[in-house]
Amino acid sequence: MDRLQPNDVVILFASLGTLLLTARIFADVARKLGQPTVLGEIPAGVLLGPTVLGRISPDLFAWLFPTEGGVAISLNAFLSIAIALFLLVAGMEVNLSSVWRQGRAAIAVGLAGVVIPFGMGVSAAILAPDALGREEGASHVVFALFLGIALSISALPVIAKTLMDLNLYRSDLGMLVIAAAVMNDLIGWLLFALVLGMAGGHNAHSFPVAYTIVFTLAFTVLVLTVGRWLIHRILPWVQAHTAWPGGVLGLSLGLGLFAAAFTEWIGVHALFGTFLVGVAIGDSSHLREQTRTTMHQFIAFIFAPLFFASIGLAVDFALHFDAVLCLIILVIACIGKVLGCWMGARIGRVIGREAWGVGFAMNARGAMEIILGLIAWQNGIIHERMFVALVIMAIVTSLISGPVLRKLLHLKNPRRLDGFLNSRAFIHPLKGLNRFEVIQEMSHAAAAVAGLDPVQVEAAVVRRERQGSTGIGQRVAVPHARLEGLKQPFVAVGISPNGVDFDAPDGEPSRLIFLLLTPRDDDGAQLEILADIARKFGDPVLRSKAINIGGYTEFLALLRTQTEEH
Amino acid sequence: MDRLQPNDVVILFASLGTLLLTARIFADVARKLGQPTVLGEIPAGVLLGPTVLGRISPDLFAWLFPTEGGVAISLNAFLSIAIALFLLVAGMEVNLSSVWRQGRAAIAVGLAGVVIPFGMGVSAAILAPDALGREEGASHVVFALFLGIALSISALPVIAKTLMDLNLYRSDLGMLVIAAAVMNDLIGWLLFALVLGMAGGHNAHSFPVAYTIVFTLAFTVLVLTVGRWLIHRILPWVQAHTAWPGGVLGLSLGLGLFAAAFTEWIGVHALFGTFLVGVAIGDSSHLREQTRTTMHQFIAFIFAPLFFASIGLAVDFALHFDAVLCLIILVIACIGKVLGCWMGARIGRVIGREAWGVGFAMNARGAMEIILGLIAWQNGIIHERMFVALVIMAIVTSLISGPVLRKLLHLKNPRRLDGFLNSRAFIHPLKGLNRFEVIQEMSHAAAAVAGLDPVQVEAAVVRRERQGSTGIGQRVAVPHARLEGLKQPFVAVGISPNGVDFDAPDGEPSRLIFLLLTPRDDDGAQLEILADIARKFGDPVLRSKAINIGGYTEFLALLRTQTEEH
Repeated sequence: MDRLQPNDVVILFASLGTLLLTARIFADVARKLGQPTVLGEIPAGVLLGPTVLGRISPDLFAWLFPTEGGVAISLNAFLSIAIALFLLVAGMEVNLSSVWRQGRAAIAVGLAGVVIPFGMGVSAAILAPDALGREEGASHVVFALFLGIALSISALPVIAKTLMDLNLYRSDLGMLVIAAAVMNDLIGWLLFALVLGMAGGHNAHSFPVAYTIVFTLAFTVLVLTVGRWLIHRILPWVQAHTAWPGGVLGLSLGLGLFAAAFTEWIGVHALFGTFLVGVAIGDSSHLREQTRTTMHQFIAFIFAPLFFASIGLAVDFALHFDAVLCLIILVIACIGKVLGCWMGARIGRVIGREAWGVGFAMNARGAMEIILGLIAWQNGIIHERMFVALVIMAIVTSLISGPVLRKLLHLKNPRRLDGFLNSRAFIHPLKGLNRFEVIQEMSHAAAAVAGLDPVQVEAAVVRRERQGSTGIGQRVAVPHARLEGLKQPFVAVGISPNGVDFDAPDGEPSRLIFLLLTPRDDDGAQLEILADIARKFGDPVLRSKAINIGGYTEFLALLRTQTEEH
Repeated sequence: MDRLQPNDVVILFASLGTLLLTARIFADVARKLGQPTVLGEIPAGVLLGPTVLGRISPDLFAWLFPTEGGVAISLNAFLSIAIALFLLVAGMEVNLSSVWRQGRAAIAVGLAGVVIPFGMGVSAAILAPDALGREEGASHVVFALFLGIALSISALPVIAKTLMDLNLYRSDLGMLVIAAAVMNDLIGWLLFALVLGMAGGHNAHSFPVAYTIVFTLAFTVLVLTVGRWLIHRILPWVQAHTAWPGGVLGLSLGLGLFAAAFTEWIGVHALFGTFLVGVAIGDSSHLREQTRTTMHQFIAFIFAPLFFASIGLAVDFALHFDAVLCLIILVIACIGKVLGCWMGARIGRVIGREAWGVGFAMNARGAMEIILGLIAWQNGIIHERMFVALVIMAIVTSLISGPVLRKLLHLKNPRRLDGFLNSRAFIHPLKGLNRFEVIQEMSHAAAAVAGLDPVQVEAAVVRRERQGSTGIGQRVAVPHARLEGLKQPFVAVGISPNGVDFDAPDGEPSRLIFLLLTPRDDDGAQLEILADIARKFGDPVLRSKAINIGGYTEFLALLRTQTEEH
């Protein structure tokens, strides 16, 4: 029986471990910079791939990521499974019913947002196929169709993340964009499956193309109608009669794997099957939130980083970087998408800046373009240069989406407590025995860190405190002041072992004290941070853990793990 | 670059899908029968393997589970990763500090429970190596040591599951058994790692055995001291500064993968590395329960079933079944383990039946024996017949552990509401307009299903109701009666659209009615089920979902998914 030898096992585990840790670290750096994690995972792979590690230490690179033999095949297989499962989760995020609820505008944006960039991509590919990276020998038609599609699929997860960051997700604009992106996703993937079928060479049985197309359409319709209905019926039964959540997890992954085998067999890619099954499962209201979370967390935090990092292993990004091609692709991609969606939005009666907002929100490309590009490259449709250009286009459009939207709609991120803390302004335990001693102690610590005059800070906070007590009850107090010359908000945290009387409405002594300093000319900052404190520490569990915390890092960990949104 | 061809991808996804769904179905059947899930997963593999599917349809079997080529290697690699991650989670269940807390008794049971069966195994192997399935050419010493170890490792997860089922997990006996099993696990794995090192041939660099042993011991000590301390320090920082729970998930799996690569490299098996890292991580009080749950659910419900089912693929259980060998192994295993642990318990001052209880609780063997057996077989230490005998020994000892313990300690499972429901005694909506009409309606439905006289049932319930109302408030009522001649408890459920006055203490009309019939001579049943109803429907979310439920299956699903213990 063929299996890995001990030495292969060493390499397999070492390379997966290296990929995972590097990808997670870069993903977190991206997150800290306010970017989608995929924008960290890809550079992590570039670092480990031929572009950087392959140049610095060719031997280590060749040992860790062999291109031939059992380890290469095993890694390839594992990553194929990883990306198929990622598409399952991505499909589960698609909410079909929301498309219908948003009605005309969503359909207009969804359609125009595919048709215009698709048309532009196809036209460009017909005009200058070789300049745009067509692989020698690839069919002109297939290449043109591929480029059209690669420019027209928006990145649903990136868009959702951007809208959430901007606090727009539940707004009318946000719901419209998400609904349109869902439609866009479905149309784009279906088109891609068809093109891949036409490209042929992808299936092992030399299926006629017509069969592939008919099977793909039939399978799509079947899964989204009968399949969806059946899953909705079966889920309660599975939850009633099997181990929970194991039964639902097993069913979802099992169906996904079978669908993957089927779509791969008919000549389109395996991940189209898992994506469709994901849509069908995610649409059922019987699916419990916790099951979704378990699956999402494991796959999004483990499998997805592994796959996206592995992209950097495949290609030398320095060798195949073609600045002109990158620029052309980027420009066509942006114009087609923004213009198309703007037109769709106008047809759907969205006006003014908001219509442009829809355009730029939909402009984010991401994971999907990269997956498509990789498949197209592996199937001999495009050249490496074009693959690199597509990856860069996806990264850049995702990067600019948030900032442009913010500028266009005059938005600011809501400010949160944990953005303005500092370990040197975390005082535990507080020595002060009454509120003015505490204010002095904390003002001086805060002033030292923020580079302000301690006497002035203390005076301002005391002045405010004398106007009315800042004890808000439940053992929390929030002395505060607005200061001239402060650049950004600053929060000091103090924990009092025995509590200090801040004259709170419930008469309880305050044990958690937040000293909040904000710039005089920033109207929102004070209110937003105060609201964040009140909301977070309204939770009695969090409050009591915070009072008994060991140190600053643990305090920060508590804030993040108890309140992080999923 | 070597990678899977489309046809290979089809097979890979199809075989993983088949394995997963079959394993999950059988696991759920095992669970329904009150057995650990691994006892379903292994038979699922036997069904799909050479034993059954290979006989019925050799072509399908050969297509689905090829033994050569890319798919075989990929499956082998994927399953190696799956079992390594399972050991990570198994390690996380080990609670080192509990061993010290249980003190002398735990150490006595843990040690005697290894030493005695180990001695018996070694002696037997020396007396009759060939009758006991030594592979030709394997060293006598290595074989004897292997058999000793294979008989001495208890199955921590099976034991924990059995104790939980019997409501003994948090009892003194339970804590002692778990602590002893933890010790047993650690000693057993360490011994096994050493034997595998001695067996040689497992590492690719012809490391001297002495090096392997020194490295293994040093690595074990290092991970469990410095490593454990470091992880405990790092975790709060990771939770404070990275995406949650992605950072912790990535760190755990990343460290696990590296440790696996290292232990494989020094010549012991990869999974020893993940196990140790699991112990070190699981011991930190900073690890949040939800992170543990996410990892546990995904790995225990997806990866573990895939691996354990794959065991059945490896061997023809019919061809290599040797009844005499199975019986010998089973007898030696039981005598050694039960006697050893009984002696340990006596030394630890446990008396009477309880000491025997400790012995039988520790007797359960399971996953670990099977993994060990597989590795030993693959490394040419034992014969296939012996591997089959070990698997059967593991299954049988796990099967008998619960029933023997129940008999020995005169235990009964606490009875739960969902064990006594029936779709034909679920009335929604109730027609009755007052409590006696409702009692009549429900009594008649219950009597029809339970095969009782409806008039008699109704009379008994009404008699009880006249003694005092059974409305317990919060819109729940529990009319009940104890009946002569009833074999087991029976519960009918009715949902009243407008509510019925059951004279509840809070004056609210009752909308959820449970009619509870129990055998006259069963003292505990009524109380236990009433307590279960009160506990479950004390949750306002569950209550309001139940009142608005669609049908019986959804009701059952609700009960199970909202209250299942993890």
